[in-house]
Amino acid sequence: MNCIVQKFGGSSVADIEKIKRIAKLVAETKKSGINIAVVVSAMGKTTDSLVGMAGEITKNASGREMDMLLSTGERITMSLLCMALKELGVPAVSLTGSQCGIITNDRHNNARVIEVRPFRVQDEMAKGKVVVVGGFQGVSYRRDITTLGRGGSDTTAVALAAALNADRCEIYSDVDGVYSTDPSMIKNAQHLPEISYQVMQEMSNAGAKVLNAQAVEFAKAKQIAIYARSTFDRKKETVIRRIEKGTVKGVKSVVSEEKITRVRISGEDSLKYFYRTLKIFEEQNISIKELHTAEALEQQFPSRASFVVSSGNIYSWEKVQNSLEDEFGDNIRFDNEYSAISLIGDGLNVDNLILLEIMNLLKNEGIKIGGFSTTSFRISFLVPRGKLKQAVKLCHEKFVEEKTE
Amino acid sequence: MNCIVQKFGGSSVADIEKIKRIAKLVAETKKSGINIAVVVSAMGKTTDSLVGMAGEITKNASGREMDMLLSTGERITMSLLCMALKELGVPAVSLTGSQCGIITNDRHNNARVIEVRPFRVQDEMAKGKVVVVGGFQGVSYRRDITTLGRGGSDTTAVALAAALNADRCEIYSDVDGVYSTDPSMIKNAQHLPEISYQVMQEMSNAGAKVLNAQAVEFAKAKQIAIYARSTFDRKKETVIRRIEKGTVKGVKSVVSEEKITRVRISGEDSLKYFYRTLKIFEEQNISIKELHTAEALEQQFPSRASFVVSSGNIYSWEKVQNSLEDEFGDNIRFDNEYSAISLIGDGLNVDNLILLEIMNLLKNEGIKIGGFSTTSFRISFLVPRGKLKQAVKLCHEKFVEEKTE
Repeated sequence: MNCIVQKFGGSSVADIEKIKRIAKLVAETKKSGINIAVVVSAMGKTTDSLVGMAGEITKNASGREMDMLLSTGERITMSLLCMALKELGVPAVSLTGSQCGIITNDRHNNARVIEVRPFRVQDEMAKGKVVVVGGFQGVSYRRDITTLGRGGSDTTAVALAAALNADRCEIYSDVDGVYSTDPSMIKNAQHLPEISYQVMQEMSNAGAKVLNAQAVEFAKAKQIAIYARSTFDRKKETVIRRIEKGTVKGVKSVVSEEKITRVRISGEDSLKYFYRTLKIFEEQNISIKELHTAEALEQQFPSRASFVVSSGNIYSWEKVQNSLEDEFGDNIRFDNEYSAISLIGDGLNVDNLILLEIMNLLKNEGIKIGGFSTTSFRISFLVPRGKLKQAVKLCHEKFVEEKTE
Repeated sequence: MNCIVQKFGGSSVADIEKIKRIAKLVAETKKSGINIAVVVSAMGKTTDSLVGMAGEITKNASGREMDMLLSTGERITMSLLCMALKELGVPAVSLTGSQCGIITNDRHNNARVIEVRPFRVQDEMAKGKVVVVGGFQGVSYRRDITTLGRGGSDTTAVALAAALNADRCEIYSDVDGVYSTDPSMIKNAQHLPEISYQVMQEMSNAGAKVLNAQAVEFAKAKQIAIYARSTFDRKKETVIRRIEKGTVKGVKSVVSEEKITRVRISGEDSLKYFYRTLKIFEEQNISIKELHTAEALEQQFPSRASFVVSSGNIYSWEKVQNSLEDEFGDNIRFDNEYSAISLIGDGLNVDNLILLEIMNLLKNEGIKIGGFSTTSFRISFLVPRGKLKQAVKLCHEKFVEEKTE
């Protein structure tokens, strides 16, 4: 069955008036004869308010209970949007992640979609209904409710589009596509009308909030084109799809992630500590970022093993730190004062020129680099948090603005 | 496995502080070696706020979408209570109605529990965990989320207690048990330390808010004693259980229900209209109260068929009325200006003395009776809404206070 998937983020459904506006937009598309599944996020500040309530109770909420709590947000939106659609005469039905057959692993707060069994979605579509789906959530093989982590509603949308073999997946938010850097931080950010799956994936992994990395992975696997658009201003858009060879090489985007923690382990038993840390992270469902720091760049604390985690999204981060410090004493160190910057594009590392340019650029401004990591699509490095905006601006000027002039 | 079920209503979990207090009470019980399943309602005003949001969108919300929306309330409470228990060192796990195996029919907004399959509850209890259950909700055989109507969390608690073969079921609210009439309306209401299942069931059916009728039905079938208590003031309680023969006969309780609508059908085709009305009520999941008015008491509108519905709990009541009026014109009439009063006790109708006394009592005060209905445990009648409190007070004085002096 021909169909499309549309996803509306939290700011697009922030209040009842916006939900009614979304309903009108969806109704127009439906009336033009297109089958639609609509994936929604929680209303504006709902998630923050739920997290706040949990915070009043405990600093160490279990992942399972947080998922139970947070998944209610999307359920509120989806039932309200269905009511608004019916009010416009459009038949609609809401389905939870579980009802849509979004099966995940049991890594709570940051679950991965393993399989999508969209039989109910297809059944309801065949009856002529708009299917409104709660994003961000799934169900584990243990039959527990899981959530998909930051940007998880994107994953829901794309995974569903892939399972339905949809014509396309439209991701609506308050920005009109993907930019060469965060436009809310850097005013010269440039709109990108088209990018490849690979570049988008690297951007998401590096912390770009516009699209979730797993979402792009699903789209790439099934060759589903993603349209990133602004909900209420549709003049521009970014299409994420397979780009034929012959793309211009060079830095496409400068992405930053503010809350990064570098974890370093030293001492004679560092290998034992390293395994133990990995085990505890695994138990706590903490993902280690791909980005690894170079070792022994700094001699005051010669680290035998070191890695980097995105600490901004870990509810129990403080607890994990404390328990590791209790166990390892001086042999483990947490550096919470870093942010990460990533330069992303095709063929960035054919030589080390860009790497050297970055080092010079930041050295001249007195910005110390906390560690490097590279792939053929990405160069990432850590800078002190207080210097983040300055460093992003410098890199964007040097590697994006100057090149496109 | 020996266990008890405790249920905490909306006012007992109205805010984070109260949730923490409940956690302490549950923790004390658990630490004394008792296995517990805790059933919770939505926090204080959550349900009202959700209903309010739906009301901003539509006057005709579908039952299914309302259930999807409203069931989020209990899910928020249950995950927060689990976090609070864990914070006190008590292992706990939250389960939705569906995860607890609460299987219902598909009568949305007012579903009946058909079966309880409490395997997960038993598994988690066997692991030493307090199981925190979202009340008021179940899952239909179509795998849709349903809600159990007013007082539905009581039903969850008792149905679960029955399925677990629990030692007892404790229902906590802001009142310390069952009274001879609504203590918030009549100051001379008398506390009842013990009542039979049958009397409690009739009271609930008649509109008493203290316990849900289906809950009592489940308790009766499995002979589970229900303890109705105040959450934070445990000096008094009411036990609902099987009472041996030899109970004192007479009126135990005067129960009222404010929002009652009398529906009357007349005309030559009244039988056809009657069937049609029943069909529409069925489609809209509107239950008809047992209470039937006597016919032709009033000659201005000689009704051929008449019945009474509890209109206060029907979201789409206005819509249903309008569509029936459109179809039947003058041949259907809705009287929304009535309330119902029920006198409940053992052996009330061995003769018609009480019935006659009521008629005289109200006639003397100029209160017109809109119709009678009796069973061997209950005498119900309609009075004008504006006269409700006066009529309850008169009946309570005459049939409860004077008899116990």
